[in-house]
Amino acid sequence: MSRFFSHKYDALTPYTPGEQPKEKKYIKLNTNESPFPPSPKAVEAAAKAAASLQLYSDPTAAKLHEKIAALYEVDAENVLATNGSDEILNFAFMAFCDKEHPAIFPNITYGFYSVFAELNGVPYEEIPLKEDFTIDPVDYIGQNKTIFIANPNAPTGISLSLDTIEDIVKSNPDSVVVIDEAYVDFGGVSAAPLTKQYKNLLVTGTFSKSRSMAGARLGFGIACKELIGDLNTIKYSTNPYNVNSMTMAAGIATLEDEAYTQTNCQTVIENRSFLQKELAKRGFVMTDSKANFLFAAHPDYEGKDLYLALREKGILVRHFQKPLIDKYLRITIGTKEECEALLAAFDAIFSQTKEV
Amino acid sequence: MSRFFSHKYDALTPYTPGEQPKEKKYIKLNTNESPFPPSPKAVEAAAKAAASLQLYSDPTAAKLHEKIAALYEVDAENVLATNGSDEILNFAFMAFCDKEHPAIFPNITYGFYSVFAELNGVPYEEIPLKEDFTIDPVDYIGQNKTIFIANPNAPTGISLSLDTIEDIVKSNPDSVVVIDEAYVDFGGVSAAPLTKQYKNLLVTGTFSKSRSMAGARLGFGIACKELIGDLNTIKYSTNPYNVNSMTMAAGIATLEDEAYTQTNCQTVIENRSFLQKELAKRGFVMTDSKANFLFAAHPDYEGKDLYLALREKGILVRHFQKPLIDKYLRITIGTKEECEALLAAFDAIFSQTKEV
Repeated sequence: MSRFFSHKYDALTPYTPGEQPKEKKYIKLNTNESPFPPSPKAVEAAAKAAASLQLYSDPTAAKLHEKIAALYEVDAENVLATNGSDEILNFAFMAFCDKEHPAIFPNITYGFYSVFAELNGVPYEEIPLKEDFTIDPVDYIGQNKTIFIANPNAPTGISLSLDTIEDIVKSNPDSVVVIDEAYVDFGGVSAAPLTKQYKNLLVTGTFSKSRSMAGARLGFGIACKELIGDLNTIKYSTNPYNVNSMTMAAGIATLEDEAYTQTNCQTVIENRSFLQKELAKRGFVMTDSKANFLFAAHPDYEGKDLYLALREKGILVRHFQKPLIDKYLRITIGTKEECEALLAAFDAIFSQTKEV
Repeated sequence: MSRFFSHKYDALTPYTPGEQPKEKKYIKLNTNESPFPPSPKAVEAAAKAAASLQLYSDPTAAKLHEKIAALYEVDAENVLATNGSDEILNFAFMAFCDKEHPAIFPNITYGFYSVFAELNGVPYEEIPLKEDFTIDPVDYIGQNKTIFIANPNAPTGISLSLDTIEDIVKSNPDSVVVIDEAYVDFGGVSAAPLTKQYKNLLVTGTFSKSRSMAGARLGFGIACKELIGDLNTIKYSTNPYNVNSMTMAAGIATLEDEAYTQTNCQTVIENRSFLQKELAKRGFVMTDSKANFLFAAHPDYEGKDLYLALREKGILVRHFQKPLIDKYLRITIGTKEECEALLAAFDAIFSQTKEV
């Protein structure tokens, strides 16, 4: 830290992204990327857009907004595309939280929420999950605070029903409720239709997971036009050309190839089911994940030891050295082959440790 | 504005980007884009990167940082790449300004500085330019405030010497001085080498202008490792994957094709010289621009009238309806053909109005 750094960040601890090692080739099951390449149509559209990079991208992202709107059956004025969903989440903390409007979110959830709160000087409260890692909806009813809920939650993968989301939104009419649906396409149900009815609901999404575009950085928000207007004020005061033209083209093309996305999601769901059964056979306990990852712990092993042993064998999973969840691994659902490689690695680890 | 929007933004007026009309084809001389396509190597590299979009981009941007560092003869630890230079400028307002560290910048300069200040709740002062639109260096000596200077300045194009920049940096040892070099490659001199000597200097740059990559969104900062460390804290608390993998690949490839950039810059400089002479013949007064645009006024015409008349003829230039500069047009230097089309349009406008 330099002596010039503003003291307002004295308590700020940046987010730590999952490791992206360069020294050797790993089976990467640690950052919830899709095991499938992007739609060939997206690759083609991005390559075409690259030839005209001398021109700025469309700051209104008009065509992309139309396509996202069509997918969610809302109007284009209800959509804002951003540089990954981290950007729209940060915009939401900027726009809808302040000293008088603190934030609340679960104590176990996407680690960036507390970072955004600290960054923006927003007071926040982390609400403990129940012992089974589920969210108790009662904790969020009538709170009159800006609520952030990942649905499905991360890293647990557990999903809330649409009815429960509606209860929370309805009971907080004077506060914005943000539902972060990064993982919704693997078996969850989107709350986007509720934005037509509730003026205090912002639903956020990403092209990073189900649409195989993590490297393109494309996220979005869906809400009534007034909330989108506020978020646009932040966007045009931050980075009007926040979405580059290659990503914009790839996003549009991906939405024109929705069958490709749906097929991939179905495969991930099948592989998740396969992996879940196989891990259970080996003694793992798991949450009921509706995401493209499993959250798994083995009663006989420390999470960190398993993480390190897998790493040794060329497989990366995510381990959080945090209270309550340090026995757990977050394992991204890969291809069938990658799932089988993971199981073989576990078998080898378990047989080694038994031999000792 | 919704009733949920934080009151901290009550005074915020977002930036207005130059118009990007879709209804018909214009000769676009309004947003200082390059008239040349990106390097073919950049197009190829971006297309290749698009095929692996399912993977996150490298959050450390290691290879890109090395390439930028090599160009400016600094170390990779002295570089931070961002989603356009707007992002690094906003990071600088976030990191190095607060209530106790107000910002100062010229009253006529890049319009985003005041927006960033408002966005971040930073008190700021706009220092009047001299009557000839030059910056008076004395105004910035020993101010002990965070200083933002675009060099060359926009929309005037006027450049400060490296000695003057050094005087300003040296005389403000307890404040960060940010030199925004978006337009430096068209005849200015970069202050980047001074970052080795001065711990309070941040130089920012962009690939949008000289490197024909406006649509890719790639900016960067160069400073001592402590300032870069602070900016990294902001980045990792905002958007760790801020630069997408296609842009990263295109940026690296562009820097491997530096001769292409230099040739284009030389052509822009030649076209600027041509256009400057021809506009002078027609009675325009202009600043001594070292940027890829001219800042020109005609004593017999209002800026807005000329802007509208050109628009009618299919040519877009930028007009700012602001005190002191409302007689002026900011005209991007296009290809020779575009410059000639602009001159022909002016001739037609002038002959029409004479006939009346």
